[in-house]
Parts: sequence; structure tokens; C-alpha cells
Amino acid sequence: MTSPFSGTATGRAGDRAARKPQLAVVGATGAVGSVLLGILSERADIWGEIRLVSSARSAGRKLTVRGEEVEVLALAEEVFGGIDVAVFDVPDEVAAQWAPIAAAKGAVVVDNSAAFRLDPDVPLVVPEVNAHAARVRPRGIVANPNCTTLSMIVALGALHAEYGLSELIVSSYQAVSGAGRDGVDTLRSQLAAVSGTELGTTPGDVRRAMGDTLGPFPAPVALNVVPWAGSLQEDGWSSEELKVRNESRKILGLPGLRVSATCVRVPVITTHSLTVHARFENEVTVAGAHEILASAPGVVVCDDPAQGEFPTPADVVGTDPTWVGRVRRALDDPRALELFVCGDNLRKGAALNAAQIAEVVAAELTA
Amino acid sequence: MTSPFSGTATGRAGDRAARKPQLAVVGATGAVGSVLLGILSERADIWGEIRLVSSARSAGRKLTVRGEEVEVLALAEEVFGGIDVAVFDVPDEVAAQWAPIAAAKGAVVVDNSAAFRLDPDVPLVVPEVNAHAARVRPRGIVANPNCTTLSMIVALGALHAEYGLSELIVSSYQAVSGAGRDGVDTLRSQLAAVSGTELGTTPGDVRRAMGDTLGPFPAPVALNVVPWAGSLQEDGWSSEELKVRNESRKILGLPGLRVSATCVRVPVITTHSLTVHARFENEVTVAGAHEILASAPGVVVCDDPAQGEFPTPADVVGTDPTWVGRVRRALDDPRALELFVCGDNLRKGAALNAAQIAEVVAAELTA
Repeated sequence: MTSPFSGTATGRAGDRAARKPQLAVVGATGAVGSVLLGILSERADIWGEIRLVSSARSAGRKLTVRGEEVEVLALAEEVFGGIDVAVFDVPDEVAAQWAPIAAAKGAVVVDNSAAFRLDPDVPLVVPEVNAHAARVRPRGIVANPNCTTLSMIVALGALHAEYGLSELIVSSYQAVSGAGRDGVDTLRSQLAAVSGTELGTTPGDVRRAMGDTLGPFPAPVALNVVPWAGSLQEDGWSSEELKVRNESRKILGLPGLRVSATCVRVPVITTHSLTVHARFENEVTVAGAHEILASAPGVVVCDDPAQGEFPTPADVVGTDPTWVGRVRRALDDPRALELFVCGDNLRKGAALNAAQIAEVVAAELTA
Repeated sequence: MTSPFSGTATGRAGDRAARKPQLAVVGATGAVGSVLLGILSERADIWGEIRLVSSARSAGRKLTVRGEEVEVLALAEEVFGGIDVAVFDVPDEVAAQWAPIAAAKGAVVVDNSAAFRLDPDVPLVVPEVNAHAARVRPRGIVANPNCTTLSMIVALGALHAEYGLSELIVSSYQAVSGAGRDGVDTLRSQLAAVSGTELGTTPGDVRRAMGDTLGPFPAPVALNVVPWAGSLQEDGWSSEELKVRNESRKILGLPGLRVSATCVRVPVITTHSLTVHARFENEVTVAGAHEILASAPGVVVCDDPAQGEFPTPADVVGTDPTWVGRVRRALDDPRALELFVCGDNLRKGAALNAAQIAEVVAAELTA
């Protein structure tokens, strides 16, 4: 039998089960993995077996997906037997080692790490923008973009298709869950330490109160904003800022796009926000932008300041779309739009987009 | 006697006291007024009497300035008798009514409201940038800029003098004390409500927990960011965003400067932060920018990310300078710099700049 769906590692053999693609979730116990299991349970169920995989440390735990308890397997070559699509949410170095192994076993890997995003033989895919790119995958790997890029790119892809994007100047307001569970725990404990105090009014008082509880951040994040995310790269740029530039260019197919990003962490649990100054080849109007965005899949326009309507992380968290508000045309440049954009960094920013890519690949495999 | 310093309303008559200018602080009991009294107590004491004035409601209270208790007087025409410089920190409509009255009584008014900032007969002054402008004041009024503009303009003035500024694209991370004491109280009570909870993870959970405790903000500010400050103006712009544009142009003497600002409130008590994309007429270098900023009065460069050095509000609050970090040259534009800037919105952003203007005026009057 040559169909990729004919063999199942668990021996399920009914006609229907045999036709359904098999999915592996690698990193199932992490922050993004947990959200992914919830998303897989909510969306149309196209999958045969969903196999859960983690590091040896977490293996043996039971997690619920599609209403059923599933035991988590330890990462090993054998777990990819019979798997058609494997979604990876693991650290870069683990992905770099294991994604090629899974691909060699015949799985199409959807990888959420940074390990392959800029590899010219790996497509970087946002289904609403460049689903077609997922079909060409010389290494058997499709990369899922960085969460900050994902928080804006669906809206920008729609505007680009109409107006032709030429420059992006972006500032982020990034949630702590972008730094994983440790980021969330750190903010919660710091908030407990500042609650009921008068901290935040004299130099360094918050930093002294935090002591050694900075967690994954280089400065206190409660009652503060921290202009740093990721690691230091050349010329003072952070890795997060360069990801926004490089990944936006690749997803939009605009290798010469001018991009400047400044990434800043804020005391929000989940949902990244960004201010975007987007310059286009053609003149823009607010009414035109509203129309484009309102009809774009995966985008919600929330833009009526007179009624207090604009997206905020507290309202957007837990939802799937990219929310866009504060749409204005630059007063000094008829080709530039100002936007405020929010997206749940664990859903569209990570797990949801990975699930969507997996579905695109599955549809192709079963077509 | 024709010298403006010869008469004193309280009858102090010593030679030295007679030569010292007399200061009135109108709005002495407010958030900015309180900080101003502290600043006046710290700086070189150039003043004769310092008279404290407030609304009738707060009159009669005693406040400490320069180590002495002073009784607060109710705002009335008579309180400006013998006053040389009157610093106003009151709502726009109160300033609009009373600043001309104080000026008619012979006081030079330094006004922190928005009432006169764009009046062509009122200079808008940041002493490090355009002290000379304070000398020409046809209405007897000098305006103090908006706190968001003040948080960045000293650094930008220095860079403009060398490179020639042509465009600013700015995003703010504004502290709640920019909305006064009510803003601070609102954030403190909201933080108490979210501390120890799991809020911030499902749509609207923070908003529901806040109930009617939004205070001066249109959305919850704890565990959130709010892309709105001020009132709605034409074409979707907020008043705060237009202030940044109009005031930057006036202070720098660049009426055609291209400016786009998006103003966002963050859960920080005091100190505004901004990301700035500044484009110049000439090519820039990071080393050159560092040198210009390091030698600029009122600016501190804090920019060594390898050592975790960049400004954050928690470290900058309570200090006088404009702190600048994350200096990068745009990767796609050799004429553009990216900056992250922090300034205490109650000190340089309001009270300190007003005190500095008052000192510039006093030096001229006594010259």
C-alpha cells in the first residue's frame, strides 16, 4: 500500500479511520501545546489519531484532546511511525534536531520554532496570506511564524494585496506569555508583590521590591514596560525585532520591504498588540482600508473611538482573529496608514496558525 | 518705583528679598502642583515669596515648600498682586480664563494647560531646545508642552540640531498619572482586583472584574493596554496624538515636520515611554547619535543591551532627565534612527519644565 494514510501505528483499521490523516503534537505539555489541544478539540475534526509527544520528563502524563484522555509519549524516532503531519512546539535546538527525523519518517512537519523559518527550502506560512507556499516544501517542513509577526500579518497581507506595501514601522506591546509559562508566573508573582503598595513612584523601587524574581525578563515587568525581547543581535537589534522584519518579508514575498520594529514587553498576560505605520505604493483611504479589512478572512475591524471601540488585549485574549482598530491615514502622507492591532499570541500567534497549516497540508494529502 | 521687583504683596522689604522675583503656583494642590513644590524645594532658591493658589475648595490647606508651611490662597485677581511669574497647572478652561487676568496684573504666566500652546502669540518652550523663544511673549504667557511631547523632545532637539529632522513616527507607552490622581487611584484599585486571580486569559474577563471602576480610562488598564488618550478629534485622531504632532512642530520650529503618533496607555504609575522612528535630512550613525545625546543637557544615554542597560519607567521615575536607549540605525534607511525614550511625565513632562521656564523668565527679569 502506497497511500500515506494506509498504515496506522496503533493498528486502527476501519475504512474511515484509514482515510483520515494522523497527527502528532510534539511539545504537547507546553503553553502553546496546551492551547493547541484545545483548538484541535474545537475545530472540525479532520484527524484520525492525534498522538501526543513530549520530552521524556513529561511523558506518561495524560492530556485531554477531543474529549478523550491520551497518554503522552516520549520523543523518539518511533513515535512518528504512520504520522502524516507533526506539529512541533519545542525549543529551537530540539526542533533543529527532531524535525528532520520526523520528516524522514514521512511526516510533514509544521514547526513553530525559529529553527527553519528563514531556510529557503522551508516555506513560512500564514494560510490567509500565502497558503499556496505550503505546497512546496523540499525538506518536508513548513515553518510557523513568530507570534509578533503573526499578530499583524493577516491584516497587512490583506492591505498589501490592494495597496502594495512598501514600508512598515512597528512597535510592539508584547504579552508575558510570549516568554512561556515562566513569563506568566513571573508577572503574577510580581503583581502580588506590588499590589497594595505605593511602588512605582521613586527610582528603582519596583526593581528593589522584585529582588531576584525577574524570571525570563531583564527588568521588572509589573508596573513597567521593558524594551527588550529575545537575544542581542548585530548593531543593537533584538532577535525579536529582526524576526518581525525577516518573517514579514518572507511571508509577503517582499524581500526588499523596509521594516523597522521595536519590541517592548508589557504587563499583559496574553495577546500581543502592535502599533503599525504602514506605507504603500498607492494612496490609501480609511474607508477603503476598513472595507478591505472587514472582508479579509481572519480579521475583525473594531474601530469606533466615539463609542469607545478599539481592540485591547483584555478583550481580544482567547479569540482567533486579528483585531484592527485606530485606523487613520497619516496626516502628512496619503500613502500611509496607522493601525493598532491585537492578536492572541498563543492562538493565532502560535497554536491556531499551526493548526491551520496542518489542515492545509492534510487537505492536500487527502485531495 | 518701576522695577517689577520693588513691591511685595506681603510687605517683605529687606534689600535681598526686594530683589528676588515673586512666584505664584496656581493649582498647588494637584498632582503636578505637588511635584512642583518638591522641585522648587530642591533647586537653587532664586525666588522671593512663593505664593500658593488653588480653587476655593482646597484653599486654607497648608503645604510645605522650601521647608516652610505655606497657606493656600483661593484663586482671585488679588492673589497676583506683586507676582512676577505665575505657574499655572489647572484645567484648560480655568487657564483660559485666569492666565490673562494674571498677565494683566503684571505676572508672566507659565501655563501647563493646552489652552495657549498653539496660540501664535504664545511661545511653547523647552529650555534645552528653544529657551530664546520665552523672551517673546506678546500675551505675557509662555506655554509648557504636553507631557508626551516633553518625554522625547529634548533628545530629538539635540539630534535635530546636528542631523536635521524630517519625520517622526512615534508610539507611546503612557503612564496613568498622566490622567491625574484619579488615574493612579484607578490603576491601584484595579491591580488589587486582579492580584491573586487568573484573570487576563479569557475574552473580557478583566473588563467584567473591573465593573464600573474604569476611572478616567475607556477600558481596563490593569493587565491591559489601551490605545486611547484624550478626546476624539477629526479623522479618528486623539487629541493626545495631535498634541505630539503640533507641539513638536512648534517647539522645533519645523511647521512642515511629518509626524505620526499613536498614543497608548499602559499600567505604569509614572513615566512615559516612547518608541521613536526619527528620519533626518542627513545620514546618521549610532556612534554619532550616542555622542550628540551624551553631551546634550538634560539627556542621559542608557544603551548597552548586552549588559541589560536600557531605560524602563520603573528605573526612570522620580528623575529629571530624558533617558534614551535602544539606539539603532534603521536597517533600510541610513537617515533614520530608532530610539526608546523614557521621561518622568510629572517632572520633566510637567512640573520640572515649568520650573525651568519660570527660572528662564526670572533670569531675564532680573538681568
